[in-house]
Amino acid sequence: MNNFEYCCPTHVIFGKGTIAKLNKLIDRNKKILMIYGGGSIKKNGVYEQVKKALEGYNLVEFGGIEPNPKYETCMKAVELIKQEGVDFLLAVGGGSTLDATKFISLAAKYNGDDAYDAIMIREEQVNDAIPLGDVITLPATGSEMNNGGVISRLATDEKLPFHSDLVYPKFSIIDPEVTFSLPVRQTVNGIVDTFVHVMEQYCTYDVNTPLQDGWALTILKTLIEEAPKVLANPSDYDARANIFWCATCGLNYWIALGAVQDWSTHMIGHELTAFYGIDHGQSLAIVLPRLLKNQKVSKSRKLAKLGREVFGITEPVDLKAADLAIEKIEEFFNSIGMKTKLADYEIDSKEAAEKIRDRFTKRNVAFGEKGAVNAAAAYEILSEC
Amino acid sequence: MNNFEYCCPTHVIFGKGTIAKLNKLIDRNKKILMIYGGGSIKKNGVYEQVKKALEGYNLVEFGGIEPNPKYETCMKAVELIKQEGVDFLLAVGGGSTLDATKFISLAAKYNGDDAYDAIMIREEQVNDAIPLGDVITLPATGSEMNNGGVISRLATDEKLPFHSDLVYPKFSIIDPEVTFSLPVRQTVNGIVDTFVHVMEQYCTYDVNTPLQDGWALTILKTLIEEAPKVLANPSDYDARANIFWCATCGLNYWIALGAVQDWSTHMIGHELTAFYGIDHGQSLAIVLPRLLKNQKVSKSRKLAKLGREVFGITEPVDLKAADLAIEKIEEFFNSIGMKTKLADYEIDSKEAAEKIRDRFTKRNVAFGEKGAVNAAAAYEILSEC
Repeated sequence: MNNFEYCCPTHVIFGKGTIAKLNKLIDRNKKILMIYGGGSIKKNGVYEQVKKALEGYNLVEFGGIEPNPKYETCMKAVELIKQEGVDFLLAVGGGSTLDATKFISLAAKYNGDDAYDAIMIREEQVNDAIPLGDVITLPATGSEMNNGGVISRLATDEKLPFHSDLVYPKFSIIDPEVTFSLPVRQTVNGIVDTFVHVMEQYCTYDVNTPLQDGWALTILKTLIEEAPKVLANPSDYDARANIFWCATCGLNYWIALGAVQDWSTHMIGHELTAFYGIDHGQSLAIVLPRLLKNQKVSKSRKLAKLGREVFGITEPVDLKAADLAIEKIEEFFNSIGMKTKLADYEIDSKEAAEKIRDRFTKRNVAFGEKGAVNAAAAYEILSEC
Repeated sequence: MNNFEYCCPTHVIFGKGTIAKLNKLIDRNKKILMIYGGGSIKKNGVYEQVKKALEGYNLVEFGGIEPNPKYETCMKAVELIKQEGVDFLLAVGGGSTLDATKFISLAAKYNGDDAYDAIMIREEQVNDAIPLGDVITLPATGSEMNNGGVISRLATDEKLPFHSDLVYPKFSIIDPEVTFSLPVRQTVNGIVDTFVHVMEQYCTYDVNTPLQDGWALTILKTLIEEAPKVLANPSDYDARANIFWCATCGLNYWIALGAVQDWSTHMIGHELTAFYGIDHGQSLAIVLPRLLKNQKVSKSRKLAKLGREVFGITEPVDLKAADLAIEKIEEFFNSIGMKTKLADYEIDSKEAAEKIRDRFTKRNVAFGEKGAVNAAAAYEILSEC
């Protein structure tokens, strides 16, 4: 096991009827900016629940955070914060809204010219942030219990991640009931996103972490068992709760502590979203199977173990079991209605492969557990997508 | 899944050479009381490492915390704290030292007459505590990442647990290398303690928590795989690291969130230790198999699942599989050198059963997931031990 450090100060409040606890979590004397997305919270009752819980608070609103949240939109919220003297941010929505809120909390305290350049590209340390909490409404990103986010910039077609311990939510309210009304597409995107988060942290070279590995595989097994239940009955509380807790635990670092991580599927997927606007979950479902095939030799041991423990594969040769495991993963994605080929989204694989190869070459980057996923590998992978 | 809340602010620093980081974790201007046990830290080099890391700090020492730490000893430390104006506590040792330090941190801020009575019996809320951190040297109690402790009182032969969010360690340093020199008996006690912690949180009635259940079983599997390795080679770093992280995760609540808990094995075990002075791990190994037999009907579903997933039992009938699982658990304890009968410790089972029945009757208490382990059940269980 590798050395590690871990500290997540987030207060998690999980379960039915928990939005009503908001007024026990935020000081009365705070001026709150409530940040949300395209308005789904006004249709599913979450907006009303939040407003009711915060009756009597000094509250300003900022709606309109997009999926794949944009830097340009975030900076409008920063302006409003400065005008209004806001000192607490409340994200109400999915991972995009929360990621945006995290970026806004840093950008509002950044005094330089270009917050995107500072936080995302130069990875400059911003030393202060406005405290934030969230009511998370979509099981997917795990942002509710981690210190990261992903922000896109329209002007440059970029989509990049950032991390800062200052953006751990003070609290995260997770009420699985609010997911009963999710569109199927978002439910499926969230399940795939969680699945791939786990793969990025599990499917690497082995540093002897049986506990973390077993936990990762347990999340995959739970997703595979619970996904058909929520698709068959969207109001199945326990299945919704199990999937939400899988999503949170898929990226709260518990399965990654002391282990090796990869994240190359995400880095290629982000580019697909930046260039073609496809959903994050879709981009991951397209890239993962081909990336695993491409990197099969170094990942064969973990892939074979996954195949045997999650899918019951009995093939004794690791490389062959790895192949079967990759097939099974793609079958699972397809079985819940997730398409896994670029052509399914009317994207030309050759063009995508060239664009992304060129961008990685220009940036001179290589991703993955051992930096093996460079521009040339990304080209190979995407050509097969 | 049940509703839950969770917040553990402890900063965990895990791995080789991490004791040297102490001076990045405690403010220079703090006056520290370093609390330790019987002196093993002076033999295994931990004392030296701590003193070196804290060179230049204002440091007072308090040694002599016992296994099953005593209230009477804790109150001597409280006196010293008041004399010296200490404002940070550093526990260096195993779970007993850390539990004592947690109690001391509360008792030093308690202004009434009898801190044991207030904190343990009346469960009075103490609203302040001296901040504390630890260098934990024994994988067993999980105290390094939770808000509880267990303290005994000599005057009354009592051993009781307490909980307060004020006693979460600010940091916990876990260096598995310091466990290379542990006596076999302590290694084995720690493995059994961890195993039984997991059982107390897993082996209850089912509220549909597949993720948490799978994680619990992963800890058990990891313990069973790694235990023989550390017994064969006490300096096997990875095996020591895996066992330590199992111990921490066995009681940091991650497997219990949203699930049902029991703790009746511990409550009976505490009485055996209070009356007869046997090790905590020993008391649990004696009680668990007989308690599971006694409560088999309500626990059969989880026991059968454990039997199948951890021990590969193929028996299809749950009640029969549960019997086999209980046998396998006792075999595992015996296989690592842990004796599991009261007679092995020269304790008369009839006498123990009567004493503990009488105490539970006098206190009018009942333990377990549904309060089923009352005085009469404890008598039945102990008579079979």
